[in-house]
Amino acid sequence: MDIVTLAGGVGAARFLEGLVQVVPPASITAIVNTGDDFVLHDLHISPDLDIVTCTLAGLINPQQGWGLDGDSFACLEWLGRLGGPTWFQLGDRDLALHIRRTALLRAGQTLSQVTRQFRQALGVAVEILPMSNDPVPTLIVTPAGDIHFENYLVERRCRDQVLGVRMVDVAAARPAPGVLEAIYQAQLVVLAPSNPVVSIGPILAVPGIRSALLETAAPVVGISPIIGGAAVKGPAVALMQAMGMEASALGVAQAFADILDVFLIDTVDAHLKPAIEALGLTVVVTNTIMRGAVEKADLARAVVAWKISNQSM
Amino acid sequence: MDIVTLAGGVGAARFLEGLVQVVPPASITAIVNTGDDFVLHDLHISPDLDIVTCTLAGLINPQQGWGLDGDSFACLEWLGRLGGPTWFQLGDRDLALHIRRTALLRAGQTLSQVTRQFRQALGVAVEILPMSNDPVPTLIVTPAGDIHFENYLVERRCRDQVLGVRMVDVAAARPAPGVLEAIYQAQLVVLAPSNPVVSIGPILAVPGIRSALLETAAPVVGISPIIGGAAVKGPAVALMQAMGMEASALGVAQAFADILDVFLIDTVDAHLKPAIEALGLTVVVTNTIMRGAVEKADLARAVVAWKISNQSM
Repeated sequence: MDIVTLAGGVGAARFLEGLVQVVPPASITAIVNTGDDFVLHDLHISPDLDIVTCTLAGLINPQQGWGLDGDSFACLEWLGRLGGPTWFQLGDRDLALHIRRTALLRAGQTLSQVTRQFRQALGVAVEILPMSNDPVPTLIVTPAGDIHFENYLVERRCRDQVLGVRMVDVAAARPAPGVLEAIYQAQLVVLAPSNPVVSIGPILAVPGIRSALLETAAPVVGISPIIGGAAVKGPAVALMQAMGMEASALGVAQAFADILDVFLIDTVDAHLKPAIEALGLTVVVTNTIMRGAVEKADLARAVVAWKISNQSM
Repeated sequence: MDIVTLAGGVGAARFLEGLVQVVPPASITAIVNTGDDFVLHDLHISPDLDIVTCTLAGLINPQQGWGLDGDSFACLEWLGRLGGPTWFQLGDRDLALHIRRTALLRAGQTLSQVTRQFRQALGVAVEILPMSNDPVPTLIVTPAGDIHFENYLVERRCRDQVLGVRMVDVAAARPAPGVLEAIYQAQLVVLAPSNPVVSIGPILAVPGIRSALLETAAPVVGISPIIGGAAVKGPAVALMQAMGMEASALGVAQAFADILDVFLIDTVDAHLKPAIEALGLTVVVTNTIMRGAVEKADLARAVVAWKISNQSM
């Protein structure tokens, strides 16, 4: 079964860690948000691509969900000594990804090509595609002006009032090679439990992707990143509220109702089932919190089992 | 006494370590070769500027004479894992210099500005000027084609036959701000014991510098980097022979006779004194091997003492 997963960062990476336990990794394609890509120290940093790739390579700090496990910070300390910005934690190994990516991009490779080279070098069999090779920075609109999502999230620790979200140049962005084909050819598409506004939202905003999800024969299954009205990680609630969405599993379902066939919600949100069904979606109530390998695999199995028991779709 | 030193890498840095023990550091200006600057991993690397700056900051591995003492190599190892070149030893701290320099240059700063910022951040009072802010890469002409000096020196460990040396675009290069002024205003100019072909040669090849050395009222004192027909470090002998020079203190004196007033040679080369005097130079015979702090200071003192006993010049 060919499975496509739309992926942001930590939540998606954890879901994919479960999925590779349940289906052959080479049958999985992750289409990854690049709206949080940014340039710092003149290096091209791709937070979500790196989190997905390095998590699947078994290299990520399991507590944080980001950052390479056991990384050192000698370079960052010296960048600071030389007057450089130090608000973004860049480990010495981590920097190698950014340095090499930047050099390859400047030499004319696409982000797709670099991403494939990295995942192959790190032994990852899952196909990992950037949503687009065109830069589509996600800006957070604040009273003080527009700031990049990573500045909002990491440098300013989400302390700004969010007035809106802008995806710069997204109207002109093209899906990366293979993205639309993967969606059309998939037997199953999964929206990972990622931030609906700044992770899944940017992917769906790339022209062509949303319509491919509407047109593909594959069922589209979503997993709510909001559990009991709170995000497992990150600023999803504040961002959803800023966008006028209800910060709940229902709010996520509403945002994606047009493309979803099935929605997985946590057992604590079972009371939302009727309202989500009223949107025309099939609802699966299960445990969606992924604390360890078993829970990750269980969640993936719940998604795949739903598909297997509904082969007629 | 304002002292200008024309400087390459390790030999010059060791001489400057002695000089700062003997005169106030702020009275010294080092004009440093940038012909060995090169781009690797899309980072702007300035080997001689870094060796001089970091040696004066007390940060250099004293055995090697290059590389930051106690540096780690986590990033380089991962650059290799990702398929990047690893022939140039880039420590994690060291990389911070190259990353920050590259970012500042791309943001529009000059190499002069970056160099000043770095030496101030590292607490170095000696003024350090790149010979030029224009790129002037030194290429080694070999039977297999032209290769950058750092590829010849480090990647290929000097194993190519040297047919010649090319300083690319040097005719159009301008001395960096302050270089000519420092030479004209100096009370003493010193040619450090650096490679005459690929360290001192490129500096002198920047239009305006050689004539400033001819015109300045300051005496110009050279220190032979060749002792007993051998270089203390590096490929000076092979390069001098390739350029048709005699690989000896006499050969160095001949190359720079027009600009030199005084030449310091090692006691083992005392027999060359008459031949060098025949070039019209004053010759000082002294110990020029700098093993430790005392010998570095002694050599610097020999230079300064000569100047003081010849104030009438």
